[in-house]
Amino acid sequence: MKNRKLLMIPGPTPVLREIQDEMGRETVAFGDSHFVADFQQLIDDLKELWSCDGMAFVVAASGTFAMEMAVVNNLKQGDRLLIVSNGFFGDRFIEIAKKKGYEFDVISAPWGKVVSPEEVQAQLENREYDAVTVTHVDTSTGAVAPIREIGKVVNKYPDTLYIVDGVCSVAGEPVDMTKDHIDVLFSGSQKAFGVAPGLALLWAGKKSLARRETLPDVIEYYADYKKWAPVMDDTKKYFATPAVNMTWAMKKSVDIIKAEGLENRYERHKRNAQAMRAALEAMGFTLLADPSCRAVTLSNPIYPKGVEDLAFRSELERQGVQVAGGLGAYAGKMFRIGHMGNVDEHELAATVCAIEKTMHKLLPGYELGKGITAFLKSLCTE
Amino acid sequence: MKNRKLLMIPGPTPVLREIQDEMGRETVAFGDSHFVADFQQLIDDLKELWSCDGMAFVVAASGTFAMEMAVVNNLKQGDRLLIVSNGFFGDRFIEIAKKKGYEFDVISAPWGKVVSPEEVQAQLENREYDAVTVTHVDTSTGAVAPIREIGKVVNKYPDTLYIVDGVCSVAGEPVDMTKDHIDVLFSGSQKAFGVAPGLALLWAGKKSLARRETLPDVIEYYADYKKWAPVMDDTKKYFATPAVNMTWAMKKSVDIIKAEGLENRYERHKRNAQAMRAALEAMGFTLLADPSCRAVTLSNPIYPKGVEDLAFRSELERQGVQVAGGLGAYAGKMFRIGHMGNVDEHELAATVCAIEKTMHKLLPGYELGKGITAFLKSLCTE
Repeated sequence: MKNRKLLMIPGPTPVLREIQDEMGRETVAFGDSHFVADFQQLIDDLKELWSCDGMAFVVAASGTFAMEMAVVNNLKQGDRLLIVSNGFFGDRFIEIAKKKGYEFDVISAPWGKVVSPEEVQAQLENREYDAVTVTHVDTSTGAVAPIREIGKVVNKYPDTLYIVDGVCSVAGEPVDMTKDHIDVLFSGSQKAFGVAPGLALLWAGKKSLARRETLPDVIEYYADYKKWAPVMDDTKKYFATPAVNMTWAMKKSVDIIKAEGLENRYERHKRNAQAMRAALEAMGFTLLADPSCRAVTLSNPIYPKGVEDLAFRSELERQGVQVAGGLGAYAGKMFRIGHMGNVDEHELAATVCAIEKTMHKLLPGYELGKGITAFLKSLCTE
Repeated sequence: MKNRKLLMIPGPTPVLREIQDEMGRETVAFGDSHFVADFQQLIDDLKELWSCDGMAFVVAASGTFAMEMAVVNNLKQGDRLLIVSNGFFGDRFIEIAKKKGYEFDVISAPWGKVVSPEEVQAQLENREYDAVTVTHVDTSTGAVAPIREIGKVVNKYPDTLYIVDGVCSVAGEPVDMTKDHIDVLFSGSQKAFGVAPGLALLWAGKKSLARRETLPDVIEYYADYKKWAPVMDDTKKYFATPAVNMTWAMKKSVDIIKAEGLENRYERHKRNAQAMRAALEAMGFTLLADPSCRAVTLSNPIYPKGVEDLAFRSELERQGVQVAGGLGAYAGKMFRIGHMGNVDEHELAATVCAIEKTMHKLLPGYELGKGITAFLKSLCTE
């Protein structure tokens, strides 16, 4: 029998059976009183868990749509946007800003590093902005931005909204809208929430909801806060048909998060990430992200000399572990591995062992056991 | 034991176990070779089944989003749109057109009737339009628009695109993009496809794809054909994470449609609709839709004197059948019942019987059996 395939890409992440079963439940009417109550509970929990003083939106769409929703309700054509980019997904804001006709400036970090709060501060002193976007974890690099410190900086400018892309962070990396002074946070179902892809999540703080009031009617329809706000305020109401089963799955994920406790969840992510990084380095990989800014949700290991990308990934897949390839300049030089959501130590240990076997096969003289030993030592020394 | 609840609202419709099970399957990577092949097969089938000479799009979103996608890729600010509205959902195009800054005119029919091809012809002779929108079946009224005849009219104007809202029709009412001269058709997963809500479907014919090329860059991001086209052309490619399980469920639905055969499916819908309407009329209801334009996907029965909306719907729900309330001026005066998708005669017979029991309870002197007898006679006289 072949090994079961472990889904270790940085999203979709493995979906627990109890979450997946919510998808398999018989669909009901969106007006069904049980569904309405479940949906409302989900909205309330999302607001509370991430300290949102405004409104949470759960919409049938992808995280990419949430990016669009995050800007169009807070900026109008000609408004000034500061884009803080640490990689491929940070750069997506450039594409969107061009499409929307915002005036924008970009501060970029080299891949694997992150823009510092000081750089953001310098730029904000230099020019006025209506909003700043930061990608919390850019999956192209595995680097995590110092969102709390940047939040403190942006918070000094009361007319500047702080928008955080939490697609690859929320429910894995610590985020707190109040403590981090975030005005708009968004994410997707398929990363650290461990749900199948298909839902966009967005939290709008009071300041963002107030900003929407000052805008002329926004041209976007499905992305307009105002169309969804009555529903998110009272889930009996209708704008567009909610994705019933996806919403249930999301609620189950949040129930699991509440049972685990957010702080425990963050600790688990940190512990697992440290163990995985120790294993990868012991097996000869170099991590793209600088030690000062390594995300707990994924790692981006650069291959050691003698290991070829496609050979590695196809052999690893044959061993039953699926990882993702590198993006941009790192395509072919690096792979990307997720360790977020509801992935546990069993799956991580199995993954490290499969990488060991793959290296043994591909690299003559590779000494088996270094990676998994480093993994175990990391787990046992806290 | 209480009766199992039958979901007889006009969407979401009952989801067959084998479709729902696709939702409950373990999620895989969107780059997984099996998923990529399934997704491609779905796209190809959708194009072939509805005779699309351009491109089919399957996007994580709702049918409402598909409405937006349908206009923004074919019209720019200031362009002229003719909105043919037969009810609540037809009127939604007015709201969208205002938001988008189109110049628009509206031809409306009284609820229960539909705008005729002659009226469309007269308006097109009167003024030039860049596009015409028609709602195939407006669920607020249960009336079906003569889309083929209107298509013949619009087709005389080569610069006018024909956009059809097929949310409550595709896979139930006959639609054929080639024969009906439709340039853009869209739908959702949760109506006549019998899948849970969460996917928007859009078919863009050659003429619509060519129109997109003549537009300046459209301001919408998630709704832009150009962002999705590479993916729909080759499902290995990435723009935003596809809703993996929803896509599988959609593919299963299309597999079922292929096995049944579209013509047989249309016949079944017609036969079931006739039987349901016969039953409703025999039980004392008046159908809102004129006999000349009754949809096969749902019926909108107006209550006979002495039957109160909330009492009726709550007693019917207690009997195990859920229907929807009326919209607009018909709220409280009418209910709405779906008979589309994968609903079979068993479910319809059970529904009619539950309505009989409800009428018996609410209306003194109600004579049991008239409705279900009419239902059976209708089914047996073909």
